[in-house]
Amino acid sequence: MRVAVLGLGLIGGSIGLAARERAGARVLGYDSDPGVCARALELGAIDERAEDLAAAVRDAEVVFVATPVGSIPDVLRRALAAAGPDCVVSDVGSTKRVVAGAASDERLIGGHPLAGAETAGIEHARADLFDGATWYLTPARGSTAGVLYERLHRLLGSIGARPAAIDADTHDRLMACVSHLPHVLANLLVAQAGSLLGEEGAERLPAVGPSFRDATRVAGANGAIWTDIYMSNRDALSAAAQALCERLQELRGWLDAGDAHAIATWNERAREQRDALLGPVLVGGQAGQQVHELRVPVPNRPGVIAEIALALGRAGVNIADMALSPSQDNSRGVLALWVGGQEQRDRAADLIGELGFPVLGA
Amino acid sequence: MRVAVLGLGLIGGSIGLAARERAGARVLGYDSDPGVCARALELGAIDERAEDLAAAVRDAEVVFVATPVGSIPDVLRRALAAAGPDCVVSDVGSTKRVVAGAASDERLIGGHPLAGAETAGIEHARADLFDGATWYLTPARGSTAGVLYERLHRLLGSIGARPAAIDADTHDRLMACVSHLPHVLANLLVAQAGSLLGEEGAERLPAVGPSFRDATRVAGANGAIWTDIYMSNRDALSAAAQALCERLQELRGWLDAGDAHAIATWNERAREQRDALLGPVLVGGQAGQQVHELRVPVPNRPGVIAEIALALGRAGVNIADMALSPSQDNSRGVLALWVGGQEQRDRAADLIGELGFPVLGA
Repeated sequence: MRVAVLGLGLIGGSIGLAARERAGARVLGYDSDPGVCARALELGAIDERAEDLAAAVRDAEVVFVATPVGSIPDVLRRALAAAGPDCVVSDVGSTKRVVAGAASDERLIGGHPLAGAETAGIEHARADLFDGATWYLTPARGSTAGVLYERLHRLLGSIGARPAAIDADTHDRLMACVSHLPHVLANLLVAQAGSLLGEEGAERLPAVGPSFRDATRVAGANGAIWTDIYMSNRDALSAAAQALCERLQELRGWLDAGDAHAIATWNERAREQRDALLGPVLVGGQAGQQVHELRVPVPNRPGVIAEIALALGRAGVNIADMALSPSQDNSRGVLALWVGGQEQRDRAADLIGELGFPVLGA
Repeated sequence: MRVAVLGLGLIGGSIGLAARERAGARVLGYDSDPGVCARALELGAIDERAEDLAAAVRDAEVVFVATPVGSIPDVLRRALAAAGPDCVVSDVGSTKRVVAGAASDERLIGGHPLAGAETAGIEHARADLFDGATWYLTPARGSTAGVLYERLHRLLGSIGARPAAIDADTHDRLMACVSHLPHVLANLLVAQAGSLLGEEGAERLPAVGPSFRDATRVAGANGAIWTDIYMSNRDALSAAAQALCERLQELRGWLDAGDAHAIATWNERAREQRDALLGPVLVGGQAGQQVHELRVPVPNRPGVIAEIALALGRAGVNIADMALSPSQDNSRGVLALWVGGQEQRDRAADLIGELGFPVLGA
């Protein structure tokens, strides 16, 4: 299999490493930065540096465009122009209608791996980056040649990913809701808190609970990447923001009318929805198993988290997710742990109790 | 010091324990549930069970109303009617204008400890619950007797809390923004994702990034507590929701106009604001010290978190906050760690590197 990778950052470099090591592919690479190309060769992410984009693509069977989101449509068009008739051309961008709009071509299949977005750069490339990760594919309805789709799908499977076909429009609306809108809200919450404090003459939050920290963890995410992401999905994001405003106004109606029953019903429904949406995701392979939360007040000194994690690890209890919320003076905190299944939950509570820590809300 | 505690749940019980152990106070307790009263006595949270509210309050120097938020105004009025002229009456509710509105009385000073909201019940009461926690006090401007304020302030300090005076209106608007609105948005995000998936015929999220999990962690929080909290602060929350809508519409304007420069500027500003708002809070006593983030890809098997936390603990590097984001199949994840100061950050990165884990974005 001859693979071309255009753009050798974290994602492109990891594709190269994985395709070489796991699929026995021969990988040609191209990056507009010659230093990056040289480093990719040193790290074993590519077999050979191509002189230019066309040279990389010419004899390839699969082409991946892994350049920054804003440049993807242009690079895709150039790759399609240079590629042979039996070559599948894909990308790794986080929005997918722009890809469908870039060209009407049977060889074009958009892609989006859910992995590695938190950083960038060839230095961080790893052959196992995509292990178990969903990799969305957005073939154009009815037009994509089956043999090309099958080739791409099989290659992605062989490098550890889980390919999943999805309509480009659905993909972008889904990402607007579960990824782009949460980033927007994180930004807006810090702006609103900042202006409130400015108005009061204060400069920093006097004290804040874990909900604010959780909700704003991604505020001001990598600007070079995220401005492109917002812009490339701007109509779906704008629609999602409008839908959220309508929900906020509905809630305001209940608040203004003093309708406690509606608020209680709405809150209960949210609990059910979150369990339905996220429960199975948290425990992965054990779908259907309920995720249980344990909250453990702990002194915030070195070694405490390790002590608890070690005890659970020794007993084979896996921690699906965890969050430590320190108190204001950092002297203590509450450690939230999520484990799958009632049996594991009870075992974890026992082990933590034996260490002398209370488990809240047990 | 004679202290009366009305309502013996987590907060009331912890006040009793702390006041007895640390301030040498004699604590009378009352709860409408006789079983709870008996348990509080067994656990040493009170010296004596009062027969009724009036009996508890009659000879007290300080009264704490620690009943559910919805009942606080009524209980405060009854406590003021039964208390002597030299008694300060306070509460622990999460919104404060309702307290000011409950009665115009020199003896009344609203309070709100930022601790322990995550659960309830006398069984979880602890003498050290308030260690280092901000305890907001909302004395009425100009009318509160200084001697009563001083007595309450000193008692709270002696049980480990940090009393901080704040205007009731400011308090409620601050909580609307940093606590109640994030809870609302968590609920709305799951509702929006749920309706999007329902529309597409799916039942659960196919895959989701850490931003959605962080933003929705508190969705559907304890309904019995949170319906009361939303309702007791409903005008400030409604105003905060309206302000957020206006910010969302401003953003939509930039998106619809394709104004990438405005989006980039807005995102950058959010990063600065979050650092300003939360940085110093995360590291507590070391105010002004920058918090650094390390992201570490790890296999999601028992013992890994412990291994890292232990290595940092041994070296005296304290973890101010942490979050583990598992991959979809739970086979691996990215561990985010926050530590204070460049020196500790570099030390942590070295130690993690020695364990064989890469540190992303270093």
